[in-house]
Amino acid sequence: MKFLITGGAGFIGSNMADRLLRDGHSVTVYDKFVTGRREFLAEAAKNPSFKLVEGDCADEEALSAAMEGADFVFHFAANADVRRGLEHPYKDLEQNTNNTYHVLEAMRRAGVKRIGFSSTGSVYGEASVIPTPEDAPFPVQTSLYGASKLAGEGLIAAYAEGYDFQGYIFRFVSILGERYPHGHVYDFYRALKKDPDRLFILGDGHQKKSYLYVGDCINAILTVIEKAREKVNIYNLGTDEYCEVTDSAGWIASELGLSPEFSYGGGERGWVGDNPFIYLDTSKVRALGWRPELSIEEAVRATVRYLKANEWMFD
Amino acid sequence: MKFLITGGAGFIGSNMADRLLRDGHSVTVYDKFVTGRREFLAEAAKNPSFKLVEGDCADEEALSAAMEGADFVFHFAANADVRRGLEHPYKDLEQNTNNTYHVLEAMRRAGVKRIGFSSTGSVYGEASVIPTPEDAPFPVQTSLYGASKLAGEGLIAAYAEGYDFQGYIFRFVSILGERYPHGHVYDFYRALKKDPDRLFILGDGHQKKSYLYVGDCINAILTVIEKAREKVNIYNLGTDEYCEVTDSAGWIASELGLSPEFSYGGGERGWVGDNPFIYLDTSKVRALGWRPELSIEEAVRATVRYLKANEWMFD
Repeated sequence: MKFLITGGAGFIGSNMADRLLRDGHSVTVYDKFVTGRREFLAEAAKNPSFKLVEGDCADEEALSAAMEGADFVFHFAANADVRRGLEHPYKDLEQNTNNTYHVLEAMRRAGVKRIGFSSTGSVYGEASVIPTPEDAPFPVQTSLYGASKLAGEGLIAAYAEGYDFQGYIFRFVSILGERYPHGHVYDFYRALKKDPDRLFILGDGHQKKSYLYVGDCINAILTVIEKAREKVNIYNLGTDEYCEVTDSAGWIASELGLSPEFSYGGGERGWVGDNPFIYLDTSKVRALGWRPELSIEEAVRATVRYLKANEWMFD
Repeated sequence: MKFLITGGAGFIGSNMADRLLRDGHSVTVYDKFVTGRREFLAEAAKNPSFKLVEGDCADEEALSAAMEGADFVFHFAANADVRRGLEHPYKDLEQNTNNTYHVLEAMRRAGVKRIGFSSTGSVYGEASVIPTPEDAPFPVQTSLYGASKLAGEGLIAAYAEGYDFQGYIFRFVSILGERYPHGHVYDFYRALKKDPDRLFILGDGHQKKSYLYVGDCINAILTVIEKAREKVNIYNLGTDEYCEVTDSAGWIASELGLSPEFSYGGGERGWVGDNPFIYLDTSKVRALGWRPELSIEEAVRATVRYLKANEWMFD
């Protein structure tokens, strides 16, 4: 099959590109290299079935030209800076909502009808049911990021109904693993490089978090697009476990051979709009036969090892 | 209190303006007069507490200047052409999603923190629970209109959480009554003026529809903003009854003194993306003491009488 991946030079996108090429598919990566990194495509670039197109998702003409002949589009390009949403509210709207519209329009032009979309467990807001299933009670949004991704989901579903598209919507917990570019493992690692004796943790450290290893995430996505047959297929992706931020900080320190003293900002949340707990019911994707291979602790440790071997990630 | 109403020259907005002025409030209408009509503001314009500002919701500077000193913003400006969404998918995104963002940003600039928003029962897609409560299972969108309004809801909720706004979100069934500018009563009336002997009905005529009289809608909104105290207040607005399209066609013909022969396009839906049935559970708003005063039949007949007395509406 022939795939186009927006944001294909990013964390999840480049892992997907490598995997698809390994499986014998053709891959075009479409990326504007704002947060994407050329280093992530070094392996892919050696493959004759790989093509790179630099461009903006808002440029429907260039994007539709790039997806000519594609069978499937993964739309992973996004503003993933969840935490700073309130500093620039337009960013989420532009990059996560409006760009999803532009990708869908480019697909209409190019005659491509199948799309996979990286949504988020943040769309459940403060879920009243935990673990949260896909058909949880209609949630109230609590973050600009979640709201912008939910809007992207809505567009994809409406295109599926109205223009006969097929949509695959993945509501992720946070993803860890090789090429992980930001978030708490990255932040804690960097802080410990500066001061190996002390680590400051936002909130009270008891914030519960669920994480998924990027390789398991890719496996889950490919399982779903192979097996799910609805017009709109919505799947939670996560593990059946969770940890507290303090646990994770401990694993990171241990993997680095350090024993820092932890101090805490206090309060139940790391920041305004931080969900106290995203923990997803993943029985729907498990019913398709998928299982995660790494535990959260293994995923955290794998991430630290990757960062250790690639300290240029902090440049 | 001082209110600003975007889309205040429209069907619901102008009815709200008249009511608020009658209740002794100050009202600024902000409208760009694309679908809004100056005739709807003839009464309001006589009141010294009324002000009209012509402008586009995307013009944050002009809008924030217009809302200086306001206590509350009703954001009713929207693309309400539900049926033709697939002909111009950008319209819903621009006018219902992005303009809601611009209104929220204008409010941030002006320091106004309370907003009432006209959403729609279409956000429930093909509801699995009927009558549909506000916390129905997380729906899948089926129309660009519903998706664009859901995105607007999400923005308002995220602003409530992030910027300490208070949001009132109203999920309407279709509204009927004085100044009703489009939809089936309007279309059937016009068709019967052309040919009083025959009426062509899209679908099989058994599409079930629930309608609410505009005066009852305004009462419900004012009840909610007076009594509901959450950060984000989401309320269905509708009646506890429904009719079939054929019933309504019969009432319209009867009110006009006609006995046309009905013919049908066939199929369960009037058009692609038409929900087969939007019927909302309104126990939440009823718990605040509100009751509708008109039945659906009375609302349909009142609408026909209004159109009869105002045939310029068809110019």
